[in-house]
Amino acid sequence: MKYTEKGICCTGFKAAGIKEEKNGLALISSEKEASCAVMITSNRVKAAPLVVSSRHAKKGRTRGVVISSGNANAYTGRQGIKDAEAMCTMASEELGLKKEDFLVASTGIIGRKMDMQLIERQIKEAAKRLSSKKEGSQNAAKAIMTTDTFPKSVSVKTQLKNGVEIEIGGIAKGAGMIAPNLKHATMLCFLTTDAYIPDSRIKKCLETAVDMSFNSTIIDGDMSTNDMAVLMASGTAGNRDIDSKFQHALNHVATELAKMLARDAEGATKFIEVEVKNAKTGSDAKKAARAVAGSSLVKSAIYGNDPNWGRIIAALGYSGADINPDIITLLLQNTKDSVCLIEQGRVRAYQDSWELKAAEKILDADEIKITIDLHTGTKNAHVFGCDLTPEYVRINSEYTS
Amino acid sequence: MKYTEKGICCTGFKAAGIKEEKNGLALISSEKEASCAVMITSNRVKAAPLVVSSRHAKKGRTRGVVISSGNANAYTGRQGIKDAEAMCTMASEELGLKKEDFLVASTGIIGRKMDMQLIERQIKEAAKRLSSKKEGSQNAAKAIMTTDTFPKSVSVKTQLKNGVEIEIGGIAKGAGMIAPNLKHATMLCFLTTDAYIPDSRIKKCLETAVDMSFNSTIIDGDMSTNDMAVLMASGTAGNRDIDSKFQHALNHVATELAKMLARDAEGATKFIEVEVKNAKTGSDAKKAARAVAGSSLVKSAIYGNDPNWGRIIAALGYSGADINPDIITLLLQNTKDSVCLIEQGRVRAYQDSWELKAAEKILDADEIKITIDLHTGTKNAHVFGCDLTPEYVRINSEYTS
Repeated sequence: MKYTEKGICCTGFKAAGIKEEKNGLALISSEKEASCAVMITSNRVKAAPLVVSSRHAKKGRTRGVVISSGNANAYTGRQGIKDAEAMCTMASEELGLKKEDFLVASTGIIGRKMDMQLIERQIKEAAKRLSSKKEGSQNAAKAIMTTDTFPKSVSVKTQLKNGVEIEIGGIAKGAGMIAPNLKHATMLCFLTTDAYIPDSRIKKCLETAVDMSFNSTIIDGDMSTNDMAVLMASGTAGNRDIDSKFQHALNHVATELAKMLARDAEGATKFIEVEVKNAKTGSDAKKAARAVAGSSLVKSAIYGNDPNWGRIIAALGYSGADINPDIITLLLQNTKDSVCLIEQGRVRAYQDSWELKAAEKILDADEIKITIDLHTGTKNAHVFGCDLTPEYVRINSEYTS
Repeated sequence: MKYTEKGICCTGFKAAGIKEEKNGLALISSEKEASCAVMITSNRVKAAPLVVSSRHAKKGRTRGVVISSGNANAYTGRQGIKDAEAMCTMASEELGLKKEDFLVASTGIIGRKMDMQLIERQIKEAAKRLSSKKEGSQNAAKAIMTTDTFPKSVSVKTQLKNGVEIEIGGIAKGAGMIAPNLKHATMLCFLTTDAYIPDSRIKKCLETAVDMSFNSTIIDGDMSTNDMAVLMASGTAGNRDIDSKFQHALNHVATELAKMLARDAEGATKFIEVEVKNAKTGSDAKKAARAVAGSSLVKSAIYGNDPNWGRIIAALGYSGADINPDIITLLLQNTKDSVCLIEQGRVRAYQDSWELKAAEKILDADEIKITIDLHTGTKNAHVFGCDLTPEYVRINSEYTS
C-alpha cells in the first residue's frame, strides 16, 4: 500500500469545491454510474439531506454527491427536504443527469433556512470547475470544512491478491459534535475507489471501515443530526471481486481520516488513543475505551499534564464494562517513552513515586496513548480522542454569533 | 415547612468538623442508636469506605459517621479497607462505642495511601468538639468540602399530618465528578431527622429523595468511586410512623442540596434546569432531560449566551428517548422572562427573529430553565445542571498538582 496525492479523484471521479467565508460547496462526480453505500447518523433528528440521500441511494447506484457547509439544513421541516432535493436537481442538471443520480450532504448550523440562491450559484460554479486532478479533491476537502482548521484527505493505492492495482481515496470534515455509540456514521466522509465492489458487499465494506475508524472516535460526546459517510466505487480498475487487501486499505484510509478528526478536534492540543486489551467481550472493550476517552475529567487532566490516573480507574468503573479493578494493568505512553502506572492491580504510581513523575513528563507531548489491560478475556478495542481545553469551550460558546 | 438553622444537628444529633488546608475531617454522632439507610455509587470501582460502610449499615442501626476529605481512599486495596475500618475504630473509641457503630466516607484524590496519623489526630480533635449547636453542623459541612466553594446545608421543620413536629437536616459536598445514570447516590450527602422511620421504609425514603435530587443532577458526566448518601433517624420526635409530609420535606431538603451542588459546580457560572414534559415514559423523560443537561455543546453555548437551540434538538435526538422531532415545543426561561423557540415543531426562532434575540438576552442570567414538551405522553422529568466553562477545564487540569 502506498500513499497517493489523488485524494478522492481516483480513476473515474472528479471533484470541485468553493469556499466563501462560512459557506462552502463541494461536488464529487463519477464519470459513469458508480455503485454506492451510504451510512447516516442514528440521531432521531435526521437532517433533510440525509433523508433525501437515503432515498436516492436505495438503488445502490449514484453519479455523485453535492455537499454544502455553513448551514446544516437540519430541523428545517418540509422546506428543508425540498431544498435538499433542489440541490440534487441543480447538480444533476449541470451534468445532464437526473436528480436521483445525486446524493446530498450538509453541515453547519441547525435550524436555519437554506439560502438557495447562494447554493445555486455555487453549484453552477463548482460544476464548471470539476476536475479529475488532485486540485479538485483538495478544493472539495476545503469546501466542506466548518470549524476544521485543516482539510482532511487520505488516498492510497494497493494491489489485490491477484495483482490488480486499485486506488482508494477519502476526504472528511468534522471537529465538534462527534460522539460515541453511533450505530452508523459520525461526520461527513466521502470515500471513492476505482475498484469494482459487488453490490452484496459494498455496504458491509463501508460499515467495517466506519466501525473501526469514525465510530471509534470521540471528541465531545455530542452526536450530530447530519453525520454521513459515503463509499462510491467506479469499478474501472478491472477487478472481478474484492478481497481482504481491499478492506485493509479501506480501513486504513478511514482510520487515518478519523485520526485527523481527533487531531483537529475543536480546541484540542493533544491526540489521545485509548487501547483496551483482553476484555471479556468486544462490547466490554469498547465500553471501557469509550468511557476513558470520553471522560471530561480524564481529558482535562491530560490537557494539564496532570497524571491523575484515578480518573481513568473511575471511568473504567462506570463504563458498564465487566471489569475486575484488582487485576487491571495501566500503561501511559507517548511516542518516545512509556510507564506502567498499575501492574495487575498493584499501584506503582503512588505519590512521590518515580512512575508518577515519569507520567507527568510523558503527558507533556502531542500524542498520548493509554493502554489498559483488563486481564479478563481476549477482546480488544481502541478509541481515538483528544484533550478538553478552555479553547473548546470558547469555540463552542461563540459558534453562531 | 419552615427552614431552620440547625443543619444536621436535629434533636439527637451532634456534629463537628476540622479543615486543615486540603485535609478535612467531620464527625456526625447520634446520642442514641439511630436507624439508617445508606446508598453508594454504582461505579464498579468502589472506594474502601463504601465497602466498610455497607457492611456496618447492614443491621440498619448506627451511632454516627466519620468523614474525611482530601484523600478518597479509593483504589487502595486491602490497606484501604484496613484504614477505613481504623477510622471507624478511632471514632467509636473516642465515644466509647464499637467500630461497627460507625459509618465512614471519604472524598478526594483516588489512588493515594491514607495518612492515618493525620486522620487519628483529627478524629480525636473532632470528637472533643462535637456539638449539638448549629456551629457543629456548619463546621462539618465545611470540613467535607474539596473543590466546593461554599458549604452546603439545608434544614427544615414541618408537621406530620397528625400534628407531630419533626426536623430534617442535610449537608452535602461535591462540585465535580458528578454524573447521570447513577443507580444509587452521586456525592457525599448526610441527612438526619429526629423523626422515627420504620425499618421497612427508611431505605425507600432515601431512594425516593435521592432519585429526584442528586440522581437528577449532572455536572460533568463522570461518576465517582466514592458517592454516598446516608439518612439517619434518631426517632426522638415521638411520631409512630411517617407520612407523605415527611417524604415531601425530605425530598425538599435533598433537592435544595442538589441544586446547591449544581450552582457550585466546578467553574460554572450558570445554574441550568432542564424540564421535559409529556414524554411517553418516565425513562424517556429522564433520558431526554439528561442528554440536554449533559451536552457539552449545549452547556458551552449557554455559557456564551449563544441561543444555538439546534444543539438542544440534536441532544434530544441522540438521547435514546422516543421522540417525534416534528411536534416538540421548546421554551427558554430565566427568572424574569421566557420565550418560545419552537412551538409544536414549528420553528419560531429563525435567524433574525425577535425570538432569537430574546433568547440571547434570557441566557444572560445566572439561572436558566429549558422546558421541552415532547407532546407524546404524560410523563415528566427534571434535571439540574450547569454551564461548561474554560474555568472547569482549568480546575480539572490542575487538581492533583
